[in-house]
Amino acid sequence: LDSKLPHVGTTIFTTMSKMAADYNAINLSQGYPGFDCYPYLQDLVSKYMNTGHNQYAPMSGVPALKQRIADKTLSVYDVEFDAESEVTVVSGATEAIFAAVTAVVRQGDEVILLEPAYDCYEPAVRLNGGVPVYVSLNLPDFSVNWEKVKAAITPKTRLIMVNTPHNPCGYVWTQEDLNSLAELIADKDIFIVSDEVYEHIVFEGKKHLPLFSHPALKERTFSCGSFGKTFHITGWKIGFCLAPERLSEEFRKIHQFVTFSTVTPMQYALADFMEDPSRYLYLPQLYQRKRDLFCEGLKDTGFEFRPAEGSFFQCVSYGHLSDEPDFDLAVRMTKEIGVASIPTSVFYHDKKDHKILRFCFAKEDEELERALEMLQKGI
Amino acid sequence: LDSKLPHVGTTIFTTMSKMAADYNAINLSQGYPGFDCYPYLQDLVSKYMNTGHNQYAPMSGVPALKQRIADKTLSVYDVEFDAESEVTVVSGATEAIFAAVTAVVRQGDEVILLEPAYDCYEPAVRLNGGVPVYVSLNLPDFSVNWEKVKAAITPKTRLIMVNTPHNPCGYVWTQEDLNSLAELIADKDIFIVSDEVYEHIVFEGKKHLPLFSHPALKERTFSCGSFGKTFHITGWKIGFCLAPERLSEEFRKIHQFVTFSTVTPMQYALADFMEDPSRYLYLPQLYQRKRDLFCEGLKDTGFEFRPAEGSFFQCVSYGHLSDEPDFDLAVRMTKEIGVASIPTSVFYHDKKDHKILRFCFAKEDEELERALEMLQKGI
Ligand SMILES: CSCCC(=O)C(=O)O
Ligand SMILES: CSCCC(=O)C(=O)O
Repeated sequence: LDSKLPHVGTTIFTTMSKMAADYNAINLSQGYPGFDCYPYLQDLVSKYMNTGHNQYAPMSGVPALKQRIADKTLSVYDVEFDAESEVTVVSGATEAIFAAVTAVVRQGDEVILLEPAYDCYEPAVRLNGGVPVYVSLNLPDFSVNWEKVKAAITPKTRLIMVNTPHNPCGYVWTQEDLNSLAELIADKDIFIVSDEVYEHIVFEGKKHLPLFSHPALKERTFSCGSFGKTFHITGWKIGFCLAPERLSEEFRKIHQFVTFSTVTPMQYALADFMEDPSRYLYLPQLYQRKRDLFCEGLKDTGFEFRPAEGSFFQCVSYGHLSDEPDFDLAVRMTKEIGVASIPTSVFYHDKKDHKILRFCFAKEDEELERALEMLQKGI
Repeated sequence: LDSKLPHVGTTIFTTMSKMAADYNAINLSQGYPGFDCYPYLQDLVSKYMNTGHNQYAPMSGVPALKQRIADKTLSVYDVEFDAESEVTVVSGATEAIFAAVTAVVRQGDEVILLEPAYDCYEPAVRLNGGVPVYVSLNLPDFSVNWEKVKAAITPKTRLIMVNTPHNPCGYVWTQEDLNSLAELIADKDIFIVSDEVYEHIVFEGKKHLPLFSHPALKERTFSCGSFGKTFHITGWKIGFCLAPERLSEEFRKIHQFVTFSTVTPMQYALADFMEDPSRYLYLPQLYQRKRDLFCEGLKDTGFEFRPAEGSFFQCVSYGHLSDEPDFDLAVRMTKEIGVASIPTSVFYHDKKDHKILRFCFAKEDEELERALEMLQKGI
């Protein structure tokens, strides 16, 4: 059996999390919260399990949850989606991204990926016979180079993958970014898959601008969201996709045959839980404190960095200190200093090494403080 | 956006379940239990949620659950799989089937489907650029016509999809079937995806023969299983795939980018729950009683049928009574008699109508009895 994804090995997240466990290091590599969800959310799941909500949910999601997502989208972003026909609940944002890419990409289509890029985009493109076309984000601020994006567009371009707030960089798209993209593709048949799983984690009073907040982009965009990142339940694997009806229709055809539906009692629980918007609107406060705590401590490590604008990741540069490849350094820091991180070269198709490591700061303060101490001593 | 699956509309399961609800009919259409899982299983999920098991599970599954699956496979079928490298937990058997098909089918490959065929096989083949080749099962006993299968094999044949116990027909493969298939493909590069979600629901003391129980088939087979069908939790969306290491490796590469991992607290709970094998070994008794009850009552309806050998579905013929298309009859019976079923023509690519309806008998006795009464009066 020859591989359809010959370049895929063990994911860096599995590799580094395992190494962290093996060496008893603090795990700031894989992106998941080091604290738990609200007990009340767990109680709601128990309640729905205990009252017979254990069989198939409707294919596109439990109506009450789809309605909550639509309501939230209206109240937070002032953009309307029809709960019944334009909101689909799926088994995690990974499935949302896979299904959206599968809905649009055909044999030979070109897909523009902005690098560094999260690791599930390229395989989804390849498995559909698409051809990835890579455009690097600007360094050191990770902004989008619109001239380069323009130059990458050809008559074969079918799709552009967007990620804001950006993983691993923490860059948050501006209104100018949305306008530039809208202008670039105005007269072209190009779709957008937008990974916005960190939508509620944006700092300094800045606001996340979903791609659908630009009317010209809305009609071409599959917007992929995550309950895992928002409610500290990455292991429940529930995400969603917002898209205009004709796109949602095609998206659902894929979802139907990829997983069919998503875990029922959790969907009901989330619908109830989202009743109170403060349950997600507090995230900027929660995470900005952690980002600030982490960045303050980083100042004494010798790393260079710009504080992340969003997401729960902080990137740091060490090129001024050492020539060591980023993967080697991440391994060595895990073993010798006791702090695991992600080498960002894995997010480039050619493994380009900019000497940048990514830390996840979605951890208890005490754990972050211990990690900082070890980094300060170790570097 | 032109559709990659132009022939796919609303699934028959959604259509009939909605119609059953709208007309307040007894829903014997979509296949899910009309009774709940053990409360103890729910308590285990609560326990694991309440003790912090809410973040990402390992990509291939929680080790304890993979071990339980391997142990069960050894004790029930006397076949060994390595828990760490040959068992993968995924988000439902639908994902298992999709990922297995995606792992092997390339542009232009031919895939043999035995009709009637469950509705997710063909789209998975198409989305990977494969070409379905259809072979009809024999009527009226739904056995496999090995001459026809042989005639369908070409140098382009890459995969054969198998389903035993069979949905919708209830046919259970025999040792002769396994031998015939092994002989047919002995000198060919052909893989097998085997949907065995009803493995524990087989009647009259007959035993399910997984395809991997034949040594020559084992090395080419992706075996897809379901916790939903076995533990009455179709809404939890947890399934698994057993395959030799080199196949599991490719399977996992797909799983990783389709959903990445599967709901964590449920995986831990199932690992504990499977400790006691009687929790799945009682299924033949449970369901044979229901099948017998249902078939006994069917005798007074005028339908013709052969009792299902496995699965929780019973097919009935009405061609001797009426020429009405099966879809029309299913709709009319839902509205006028108050019992919803599935027209089996939907499981044929050309919608061939053999005048056969499928009933799900995984319901409370009382509900089955009411349905039978209405069928007896109505027909
Ligand atoms: C799916 S495991 C990786 C989690 C994540 O989003 C990240 O670490 O970037
Ligand atoms: C995934 S909904 C359909 C359930 C089922 O297996 C069936 O009814 O055949």
